[in-house]
This record gives sequence, C-alpha cells and structure tokens, in this order.
Amino acid sequence: MIKVGIVGATGYAGAEIAKILAHHPEAEVVWYGSRSYTGEKFSDIFGNLRGLADDECKEDDLAKIADVADVIFTATPQGYLASEINEELLTKAKFIDLSADFRLKDVKIYEKWYKIDHKAPQFIAEAVYGLSEINRDKVKSARLIANPGCFTTCSILTAYPLVKEGLIDPDSLIVDALSGVTGAGRGAKVANLFSEVNESAKPYGVASHRHTPEIEEQLGYACGHPITINFTPHLVPMMRGILATEYASLVKNHGTLPTSEDIKLAYEKYYKDEYFIRLLPDGKYPETRWVEHTNYVDIGFKVDERTGRVIMMGAIDNLVKGAAGQAVQNMNIMFGFKENMGL
Amino acid sequence: MIKVGIVGATGYAGAEIAKILAHHPEAEVVWYGSRSYTGEKFSDIFGNLRGLADDECKEDDLAKIADVADVIFTATPQGYLASEINEELLTKAKFIDLSADFRLKDVKIYEKWYKIDHKAPQFIAEAVYGLSEINRDKVKSARLIANPGCFTTCSILTAYPLVKEGLIDPDSLIVDALSGVTGAGRGAKVANLFSEVNESAKPYGVASHRHTPEIEEQLGYACGHPITINFTPHLVPMMRGILATEYASLVKNHGTLPTSEDIKLAYEKYYKDEYFIRLLPDGKYPETRWVEHTNYVDIGFKVDERTGRVIMMGAIDNLVKGAAGQAVQNMNIMFGFKENMGL
Amino acid sequence: MIKVGIVGATGYAGAEIAKILAHHPEAEVVWYGSRSYTGEKFSDIFGNLRGLADDECKEDDLAKIADVADVIFTATPQGYLASEINEELLTKAKFIDLSADFRLKDVKIYEKWYKIDHKAPQFIAEAVYGLSEINRDKVKSARLIANPGCFTTCSILTAYPLVKEGLIDPDSLIVDALSGVTGAGRGAKVANLFSEVNESAKPYGVASHRHTPEIEEQLGYACGHPITINFTPHLVPMMRGILATEYASLVKNHGTLPTSEDIKLAYEKYYKDEYFIRLLPDGKYPETRWVEHTNYVDIGFKVDERTGRVIMMGAIDNLVKGAAGQAVQNMNIMFGFKENMGL
Amino acid sequence: MIKVGIVGATGYAGAEIAKILAHHPEAEVVWYGSRSYTGEKFSDIFGNLRGLADDECKEDDLAKIADVADVIFTATPQGYLASEINEELLTKAKFIDLSADFRLKDVKIYEKWYKIDHKAPQFIAEAVYGLSEINRDKVKSARLIANPGCFTTCSILTAYPLVKEGLIDPDSLIVDALSGVTGAGRGAKVANLFSEVNESAKPYGVASHRHTPEIEEQLGYACGHPITINFTPHLVPMMRGILATEYASLVKNHGTLPTSEDIKLAYEKYYKDEYFIRLLPDGKYPETRWVEHTNYVDIGFKVDERTGRVIMMGAIDNLVKGAAGQAVQNMNIMFGFKENMGL
Repeated sequence: MIKVGIVGATGYAGAEIAKILAHHPEAEVVWYGSRSYTGEKFSDIFGNLRGLADDECKEDDLAKIADVADVIFTATPQGYLASEINEELLTKAKFIDLSADFRLKDVKIYEKWYKIDHKAPQFIAEAVYGLSEINRDKVKSARLIANPGCFTTCSILTAYPLVKEGLIDPDSLIVDALSGVTGAGRGAKVANLFSEVNESAKPYGVASHRHTPEIEEQLGYACGHPITINFTPHLVPMMRGILATEYASLVKNHGTLPTSEDIKLAYEKYYKDEYFIRLLPDGKYPETRWVEHTNYVDIGFKVDERTGRVIMMGAIDNLVKGAAGQAVQNMNIMFGFKENMGL
Repeated sequence: MIKVGIVGATGYAGAEIAKILAHHPEAEVVWYGSRSYTGEKFSDIFGNLRGLADDECKEDDLAKIADVADVIFTATPQGYLASEINEELLTKAKFIDLSADFRLKDVKIYEKWYKIDHKAPQFIAEAVYGLSEINRDKVKSARLIANPGCFTTCSILTAYPLVKEGLIDPDSLIVDALSGVTGAGRGAKVANLFSEVNESAKPYGVASHRHTPEIEEQLGYACGHPITINFTPHLVPMMRGILATEYASLVKNHGTLPTSEDIKLAYEKYYKDEYFIRLLPDGKYPETRWVEHTNYVDIGFKVDERTGRVIMMGAIDNLVKGAAGQAVQNMNIMFGFKENMGL
Repeated sequence: MIKVGIVGATGYAGAEIAKILAHHPEAEVVWYGSRSYTGEKFSDIFGNLRGLADDECKEDDLAKIADVADVIFTATPQGYLASEINEELLTKAKFIDLSADFRLKDVKIYEKWYKIDHKAPQFIAEAVYGLSEINRDKVKSARLIANPGCFTTCSILTAYPLVKEGLIDPDSLIVDALSGVTGAGRGAKVANLFSEVNESAKPYGVASHRHTPEIEEQLGYACGHPITINFTPHLVPMMRGILATEYASLVKNHGTLPTSEDIKLAYEKYYKDEYFIRLLPDGKYPETRWVEHTNYVDIGFKVDERTGRVIMMGAIDNLVKGAAGQAVQNMNIMFGFKENMGL
Repeated sequence: MIKVGIVGATGYAGAEIAKILAHHPEAEVVWYGSRSYTGEKFSDIFGNLRGLADDECKEDDLAKIADVADVIFTATPQGYLASEINEELLTKAKFIDLSADFRLKDVKIYEKWYKIDHKAPQFIAEAVYGLSEINRDKVKSARLIANPGCFTTCSILTAYPLVKEGLIDPDSLIVDALSGVTGAGRGAKVANLFSEVNESAKPYGVASHRHTPEIEEQLGYACGHPITINFTPHLVPMMRGILATEYASLVKNHGTLPTSEDIKLAYEKYYKDEYFIRLLPDGKYPETRWVEHTNYVDIGFKVDERTGRVIMMGAIDNLVKGAAGQAVQNMNIMFGFKENMGL
C-alpha cells in the first residue's frame, strides 16, 4: 500500500484522483491538500465520497507532504510546481504534475504560450511526458511526470499512428475539439455558470490555445520534424468529455492514396494490445458518453476519397484519461502495479 | 415614449428587462446601470442584444438616473434601494424594485428573515406589492412598486382563489417548488457552476427560505388572518422556470368536500379574464417549457378524493413573470399602456 | 462464479445490471436477452461496455436461460414475468424481477393500479419484497425477489424509521419526488426526446402514480395499519436520480413534539450500520449528484417548529439503488456474497 | 393579412413557424396540417401557444389548403412536396418548402445523396434557393422557395464573402459544425431520447451528410466553379443552435496573404447592411446562446498567420434562421412586407 498526497484536491481533477484512489487496492490518500478548504472535511465538499474520504483538507505544503507520501499529485495552476519543486523533494517522493509546467521541452515555447517565467527549467529535461501508451518505458523509472493535458491526450493519441507511419501530411492537420465544462476548472467564474454555459456552444482560444504547442511538439517527435497545426477548442454544455475531430490530407504512396484498410492497420499496429484504447469497428464513431467515468480512449476514422482527406475522431473523459485517470495509470506504471488497477 | 433606467442591468433580471424593452414600442432604456461592467458596451456582455442595446453601462447613481428617466427598475441586492431611496427621488421618477426591500409590510419580519436593518421603513406602507393581477388598481397610482419574488408570484397565484374562497385550509398548505438556476443570480459562485448544477437536484433553504413570509403575508390577506405554511425550494438543472406543486386539505362545506368542479369555478372566478393566467384543461398540468420566455402563469390542479387534498400546480418563467416581465407589466399599468405591451 | 441471465438487457435498468456485473468478481453474464436487438453485439448498443460485454443479444426465452443461469434478472414490462413464471423455472434458477408484478401483496390493488390481470397470483405470497435493508433476512432464502421501484425505494427508506417509531402521523405523509429521465425507460417516445425534456420540469401521474400503493403498503407494514398518502412525481431534466422530499406532521409524545435529536436517533437506530445508507450531518441535505452511479441512499431532515412538521429528504440513483444496484445487492445476499460486492 | 397553411405543423420547424406567425401582424394561420395529430388542438401539443393557436390540426391535403391559403409552408420529409406539387397548386398558392426537394439544381446529385427518385424535376429550375441575403431579388417573385437547410444556411453565409472575393481556396474548406438536437426532428427515435443525448457529443454523417452537396453547390456559384469540401456535423446536448467552425487556406495576392483587415472588409462589403447578419468585433466569436430564438447570424473570424489559414465561425438558431425564421423572412420578401416583420 503506497501513500499518496494530492495537492489541489478540491479542484475537479484533484477530486477525481481522490475518487479513483478511494477504490484503489494499493494506494491510500494521506493528504488532501486544498488552500480553499483547509480544515473542512473532504467529503463535505465532495459528498460522493462521504464515508470514503472523510479526512480534513490540509494546506499544500510540499515539504510536509513529501515526508509522508510516496507519490504526490499536483493538480494545481500553471507555475505552482515549477516554483516549488527541488531536488530534495524529488528524492523523497515521486511527482505527477497535472499542470503544464513540465510538458514542453522548449522552455521558450512554454514562456511564450503561458506568459509565465519558468522557475525550474533544470528539471524539464528529466520530466517524462506521461502519455502512458507512448512513453510507458520512460514513465517506469521517472521521478517527475508531466501529465498531459486533456485536449492533447485525445488529439495526439487519435492522430499518432497515422503521423508516425507517414500516412498523413502532419502540416495539414486540423484538430477541432469539443470539451465539457469541467475542463474549465472549478474556479468561481461567471463564464462557467450553469446559465451561461447551458444551451450554448462556443469556440474559444481560437488559434491561440495553450494545448497547441503541446500537440505540435509530441506529434513532431512522431514524424521526426517540427510541425504546425490548427487547433480549435469549443465549449459544449456537458460536464465531462473531449471529442477531437481531426482532418488531414492523406499522403500518396507510389501514386496511390492510403485506403481505409491501410489506416486501420496503422492503428492496430500501435494500439491493438492497449487496454485503454478501443479502436471502433467500421462505421462506428466515438461518442463521449461511452468513455465517461472511464480511462478509455475510443478512436474511429473515415477516409474521404472525394477530398483525399482522412477524418480521425477520438473521445476521452477529460477528467479521467485527460487528467486523473492517466495520472493514476502513470502511478501504476511507476510503482509496478497492474496498469489498469483501480481504473 | 417613456425613458427607463435599469440599475443592476447586467444581472439576469436586469438583462431580461433590457431584452423586453428592446422591443417595447413605448419605452426606451436610457441608462444601463452596472457596477461590474461600467464602461463596457451592454451588448458585449449580453450578445443577444448586439445591435439592439449597444450603449455603454454606467454607474448606478440614482440621482443622476432619476434626472433622465421616468421610471427606474432596481434589480439589485436586498438592502440597496432601502438605503438609497428618498422623497426627492420618488418625486422625480417611479421606482419598480425587484428586491425584497419593500415587499413585506412588517419590517420586523423583513429584518428577521433577511438579517438586514431596513434603512427606509417610512416608505414601506406606501409601496405597492406588485402582483399585477391581484393589486392592479393600486399599481396604477403607485410611485414605488415592490415587485414580487419568483417563487412567491408562482406560489401565491396558484393558491390564491382557493384560499380566498375558503376551499382549502391555508395552514395545511405545503408548497414544494422547483427553480431554474437563473433564480440564483449571476454572481460568480462555485455552487452555480455548470458542473455543480447539471445532472443534479437538491433542496435548499428548507424551512428557512426568505420567500416563505412573503407567501404567508399575501395569502394571509386573502383569507383574512395570518397563516403558517411549509415552503421548500429545489434547484433543478435548467436555466429558467419555477414549478410550484402545492398541497392543501380541502375544507368541507355542509359536510361535503369541494369537487373538481367547485375548484375549477373558483379559479375561473378570479382568472378567466386574465391575459397572463392560463387555466389548463382537466388532466393537463403545467410544464415550465411552455411558459419559458413568456409572462404567462399556467395553472392546473387535481383533487385527490383518497386523501381529501387538492394538488395545485403552477408554472412561470422566473425571469419573466417572476421578475422582469411582471416588472414591465407593472410599468405598463402605471403608465397607462396596454398591460401586455411588449410582453 | 455464478451465471447470470438478464432479460430486457438493453433497457436502462438491464444495461445497468450488465455494467455492474462486468466488474463483479463472482458473477458472469451468460445471457443478454433483448427482443429488440437479438443478434446484435451488446457492446454495439452500449458502447461503454465495448471490450467488456461483447456477446450477442439473444431472445428472451426463460426456459433456455434457466438451463444455463443460476439467477435471472427480469428488467421487463409489467406483466411479463407473471405470464411466464412457473414452478419449474423457479426450481432451476432464482428470479429477481424489476417489474411491479410481485411487489404488491394484494392482487386486487395490483390489478386496479396497473390495469392488468395478474397471471400468476399463486407466487405473490412467496415473493420477497427486495428492499434489502428492511427485508434482508427474507431475501437470503428467497427464490423470487420483487425488486422495489425507484420512487418507492427512496420514499420508503427516507420515511421508514419515523413511521416505524411513531414519530410522525403516516396519514399526513406527502411525498413530492423528482426523477431523472432514465426512469421513463428507453422506449422511443416523443415525450422523452431531449428537446421535449430539457429545460423543463413537470409533474405527472398526479394522485394516480402506480408507485403510490407500493409506498402505502410497505409503510403500512411499518406502522401496523393501512395508510393513505399523497405522492407526486416530477420529471426534471437530468438522466439519473431520485430526490424525495417528504412532509409529515410530528406526533406529540406526552404533549411535546419530537425534537431534531429524537428524529436523528430514530434514523440512527435503523440505519447507522447500513453500508448503503448515509445519514447526512445537520444542515446537509441530499443532492442527487452525490449518489449518481452508486448504490447509496443519502438522507437528511429538518424539523420545522413553526408548522410542527418534519421535512425528510432522500436521494438515490434510480438506476442503481432504484433498480439494478439493489437487484445486485439482493443477488449478493441470496448467494452469500459480501453485500456490497461489485457495487 | 395573408392566409397561411402549414404542413407538418407539429414537427419542430412547423411549430416554430406557428409560433412566429402567432405574433406576425400581417399573416394568419388558417391550416395546421399534421398527420399524427389530426383532430387535436394545436395548443394541446404545443402548450406555449395555448390561447394563441387553439385550432384543431387537420390532415395535410394540399389541394384543400391551397384553396384557403395564400402561402403554404411544407415542413415535411424529403420527397413529400416533390410527389404532391403541380402547376395548379402553384397557381393557387405560393410554396415555401423546408425540405431538400428543390434545393439542389442537379437532380442526379439529389437522387444520389437522398436515395429518392425525384417526382417533380420539372419544377427544380424554377425553384428559388431561399438564402434570403444572397437571393433576395429572386425570392421576391418566386412561386416556389427551396428553403435552405440549417447547416447550409450557417455554413454558406459564414464563408460566402471570402469565397466570392477569392480570399480563400474553396477546395481547402473544412466545415466542422455542431448542432442542437431539434435538428434531428421530433420523430420518436431512441437515438434522440434525453438520456441518449445528454452529457455526450458525437460526430455523425461523417463525409456523407446530405447538406454537403448543398454547401458545395452554393459556394460553387460564389466562386464560379464546382468545389469539393469536408463537412462534419456533430450532435451536442442542446436543443437549438448551429455553430459552424470553418477552416480554409488563405490565397496569396501578389505574394502576400490577406490580412485580418482584408477579411473584415470582405465581410462588410456583403453584410454590413444586412439586418440579420451581425459581424462580431475583433476577438469576439459567435456563441449559439446569443442567437437562440432569433433570426440572426453571428459571424466572427481569426486569421492564423502560423498556418496561413483563416478560421471562420458562424452561429444561428437552427429552427429560426436555419428553418422557420428564414422561411418567414422569405414570405415577408415575397409578399412585400418589411423583411424582419414578426422576426
């Protein structure tokens, strides 16, 4: 039984970690860190865990937490972990960071898109980008995991095999994505009130969303060179779920376009043994409802011969595979547990 | 064409007044008062009114507004108008207050339930409780209207004829009501975030909600003596709408219980010529969707001979008949316009 | 590992049983019965179970199912099991019926409220009303379980201790309840389309809903004599959840009304060791979101000294504790598994 | 006052026409045609119109309707009007058809995408494609209007000026669109039940949706040659609204890409005097909530210099500008009323 600290436990991602771990046979939460609710019972905030997580919330003092925890999840705003992390902490506990602090390898790109000075660039190289299915081996021995963003997890996994196999032109990639409202966090903002969000759909962060460079960097590794893409997120009136619809031009091989069968084989090559990735049968496309409250990624595709493009579609639960679930998946890998334990 | 000022124009009730008046042939908004958005275009906050209400929001200085407006709607927190109102203002403009400040005739009850000292008790007697259908004549000549609350409008109108006619025992009255989330206002509160409210139903203010004494006072006038009732509001995941389901014991007359026909006749006696009250046919019950974005009150009922009770049901749009619509209805009455103008 | 058949597997309750059992360590589904989808893969209908329940749906032939299953869940319309059940089937397999066929002990009341001739009245006496917490001992040895309705489970458990202890007048009981839309089933009806249900709340079955006699019968057992109550269900725009708000007059004991403490002690007397019943602390009331996707019943209450009534509030997930979850709980009890296994 | 017949009056589009016309000063509905509800009061089906549209629904006999109506709206399935229309009907009444029957000029494309034999190809040439802002002059004198589809209205108007001005490569166009559920009609289908749709987002008709050739044909007229595009609709859990996010490669002019200013000028050239088209200020993007229950089209855009593409975004209410509202707008044009009368 390992001991776990959660910093930012009363945000949506933090609370989802708490919920998952309430039923995890090998992990026990010993610290619910929450600045806003210090001194209150966790289950008075998240009533679903009444009887399962009744400890009081405590401050978010990493030094104290590292003394009692084997692994610390930081579900915190950008910049928090970078300003707190140090070598001593890393020797005491493993860190799984759900913020963007250690996701981008190029600190200049981080500072440009996030408009924050990075306070701990010396740990960027060591940090492992925790896209479990792609970087499983590196995750095993990592001390510091940069847990991927929700849009990026979905966007990258949906396109990865076709980029890696050279079946599509990566610079033609357009990612149009929908998100549930928990993706906007649990902060008290007018924009996220029920009556502002319900019965409406809207684009945001158009050509400027911070997950763009993260997708570009990771898919750039897959094809071996830097790429530039379009990514447009939309808010739709649901609590959970990411749906990514991705468009790319197919690349001819010896003068002929890849067929549906070629695309299918590429997906199977990378994913057929992955427990959490489900390739949908022909003619079936992902729906966020089928992955809600699960760590699955559902992927489908359609070749459009009229336009020479492929439409790739992926769905995840933003709070699970897009945050807490993948974080626990990484924890399982790091501690040698069965990868789907508790998930 | 009369000139209108709205204080609290960027709350939900204020914005609904702005929306209604954007199409009102005899009224023109000359002042959008909003502390939070002073200097911003109204239509940049409420994009539905782009092209229709593009003026900038201004501070909420009643003296300045009273100089340019014939009528001022105050869609403001409890205590605001009581602390600002004075004789001079009332001579310059008519006031329609959407807060509770002047609804309760007994200032002690106000202070007990709202936990605020009343700063202008001298105007309470003069203020007219603006339940248009009941107090139409008094509204005509009023300088200060206390516009009723959303739950109260629906709860009172649904029970009024049966209380007035002595068909039910008013002390047996139980009002169980559902509300959409706009009823909770447009403040940035975690409790009203989409992901806190959606897919959930909850009671609140149980045996302590502030609309209770307002219902008791008004129905007490109807039956001629003070009454005590139970009122339980619930929040359900919709933006608009109040549904009140009310239970009361039928009162025997010469040893026999009133019949469905008796109940129907009582409703018709008071409401059959009311434009905004629709009595539903037998077997039809109100649904909030049918009154959304309208000023209608839909009312239905069912006599339960097994228990000797009648179940009365009413529905309104909380922002229209429960706030902005009734406020404009009162304005229409006060200025001699057709009562349903613009509604 | 026991073998399970589900008849009506592609309705909401049936599919919820399939979902729960997909993770149950001691039960295996061997028959997904579905008239509408015979021959289709179960996971093509319920994509959440892709990879977990990929068998084809089969016809609903009880004789064949009883040959291969130890227990059969019938999540079927009223009248189905009554017309199919016989002694031979009951010797081969245990039955847990989610319809109303065997819930009411008085066949005349069944026939009056359901307007169906009961085809197997000879099994009514034997059937155990599967309200697990109340009838646990009888469930253990039952061959045929009448699994309670969703409204009834919530309504009865919320009031039971106070009725049993004589703290309230049972004939004063008014149950006002809210339900999510899955409660209306998965049939293709216009009334349950998204655009008919969303952004609306409505009462239905007023003074005539079929769960009324079920509540009356069970609470009548609790107080030792027949009772008559009011029960009004409402549809609100959410998928899951029952919230029951119940009103009753407190009964004086030696001239004084019971206090909050008295009420609390009564609840604790019956429920404090119940795993699935959570008594909420003072001032906390149930919200359906906290019990969604769980088998919990959350219960809170408020004494209103002004009116001499107590307001009792309970919440469940209609598909879990209100249907599939309680059915599996009963299965666990019947087969000697840990009562919360898989739940 | 003109007389109006509505065929398919109890579908969502038909009922929206009825609602709009209930407040139209120059039009009166004389025939609510509905096969499913013949003999029932219209306002018993659509309770919002109680007191406003209480006539009984009648059969959908075009000959009889044409005898009493000046204009007939057919809000009917594909193939209906084509199989009924004839010269005599067209001499008696004007027709505004909300189906696809007369939208596509090439009957072969119609038959290929809709898989129906066209029964009245002789009227295709005469029919005017009722995209009011583009074809206003032709609408004036038309006898038969092919009212555009909801996705197409939004998709075309959002891209039209840029295609027309040659600022974008039309073959690079990708339209990714979101729709509310009323777009799927009011038929009793499991797929459109609340509990199937809520809390989910899904693509459908991928690379095969029937609105694709309609967009291609109309934008092909704008640029002067046939084009091929990608169009992917998604269903999101809201009742109304279309949001189209469209991507296209900018076309260099003398070696330089068009700027934001160039794009803005193109939009203004075509739309600045259009009452129902609102060009949003820089940095503002459309949200469906702001156009709900209105006939507006809100349009915004963003030039992405990193990728050389422009992202165009448009929003409409699918039932208003995407169906009933545009139909009434066309009626207004045809009969010489003010174009926004009643809208």
